[in-house]
Amino acid sequence: MGGEGGRGRAKYRRIADDLREAVTRGRYGPGDRLPGENDLMASYEVARMTARQALGVLQSEGIAESRKGAGVFVRTFRPLRRRGIERVAENRWGHGRSIWAADTEDRETVVDHLRVTEEAAPAGIGGVLALAAGDTVCVRRRRYVLDGKPVLLAASYLPAALVSGSAVTSADPGPGGIYARLAELGHAPAHFREEIRSRMPSADEADRLELGTGTPVILVCRTAFTADGRAVEVNEMTMDAASYVLEYDFDA
Amino acid sequence: MGGEGGRGRAKYRRIADDLREAVTRGRYGPGDRLPGENDLMASYEVARMTARQALGVLQSEGIAESRKGAGVFVRTFRPLRRRGIERVAENRWGHGRSIWAADTEDRETVVDHLRVTEEAAPAGIGGVLALAAGDTVCVRRRRYVLDGKPVLLAASYLPAALVSGSAVTSADPGPGGIYARLAELGHAPAHFREEIRSRMPSADEADRLELGTGTPVILVCRTAFTADGRAVEVNEMTMDAASYVLEYDFDA
Repeated sequence: MGGEGGRGRAKYRRIADDLREAVTRGRYGPGDRLPGENDLMASYEVARMTARQALGVLQSEGIAESRKGAGVFVRTFRPLRRRGIERVAENRWGHGRSIWAADTEDRETVVDHLRVTEEAAPAGIGGVLALAAGDTVCVRRRRYVLDGKPVLLAASYLPAALVSGSAVTSADPGPGGIYARLAELGHAPAHFREEIRSRMPSADEADRLELGTGTPVILVCRTAFTADGRAVEVNEMTMDAASYVLEYDFDA
Repeated sequence: MGGEGGRGRAKYRRIADDLREAVTRGRYGPGDRLPGENDLMASYEVARMTARQALGVLQSEGIAESRKGAGVFVRTFRPLRRRGIERVAENRWGHGRSIWAADTEDRETVVDHLRVTEEAAPAGIGGVLALAAGDTVCVRRRRYVLDGKPVLLAASYLPAALVSGSAVTSADPGPGGIYARLAELGHAPAHFREEIRSRMPSADEADRLELGTGTPVILVCRTAFTADGRAVEVNEMTMDAASYVLEYDFDA
């Protein structure tokens, strides 16, 4: 079948198809080295440029990654499983556990950058939080690292009028995190909305998440509402798509 | 600020940063034409290659797209909002509505390819559906088009032993779709799990979804369980990331 069907296709795409299928079938597993340019030149009788293009296809698809001087390797995809619904359940933060602990299943994510500021609300955020013009927000910006690799950038926005002077603005907000503190202030989150998108990263995001070529970001924007429907927090998350599987469990 | 900070950066990245900021601030809106190579060469006093690289950055980030002979335009992002939890609520399919209608908010998605087959279960699928070796599955493959643009590929897998000979295997399964038919067969879906990933598309996926450069796909794998915990369907969806926002609403 490949014979005739493949004749019209560019050679490098045929080679890329073969390599991809070998990865799919498990002939090359995560972390394995793929055949190099010289190997492909010999076995397919093609020019170096053609071999390079074929390996480039797998890299642009995020299946493989180049390591300088060592070759092209099957990308390891051992993702974090993020359970969107369980992780913000009140029985977690209500008992003083950090909701982030739910992310990791025994694997340790660490905050390696944390900055808390008070600033003018960005236009989109101010709208969601129903702020007036000139109202400020408390912003908690964090970067999370897993096994030394940055995997998540998060920025939480809370109305300054609600949280100013409270532990929400401290680097360490204490047991149960900011949701437990919001509850103490009379603004317990009761409902959440998560909106998910995906796109290619900006150059700045690629730098901060140390993304490989061909890796998109997943954007999760979570809004926390009190029982009477007031939005009290917007958390904008930017995730390395190669590091995460998001999971939602719910009834019919 | 830009002055010193920018000196170390490549010129094309500085220009790309300026253009991105102009898009973020709304100076160029969706569908607007960005300054062309000649404009950038004149206003930044750079070579054509530098101007081209700057426009290339915005394209690789998915912010802009090139139209042959016409220039580079801000990409229109007017996504479908897919409400993961509402859309499979029993009060939809239980009353004969198609669950897909929930995707579109008055915008019409159309199935332009549909193929129903019975085949050997792929390894991963057979595991989730707890099938024995050699058991077959009914596979419903569809492509959904919005405003003439393909936005979603979906493949539903159901145990053939459960649905063979029923309307589930018909091109048109009737009011309420396959979930209503499963309910009639005594296998009503009661619980769902959705798993979400994102990556760059394969060449085949890019062709079938007519994806522009720099557009990832969102993968949603939904498993439907009966009240006694049996998995009765796995639906693998591949979405044009530029066409979708996924939304999940839930309580603390």
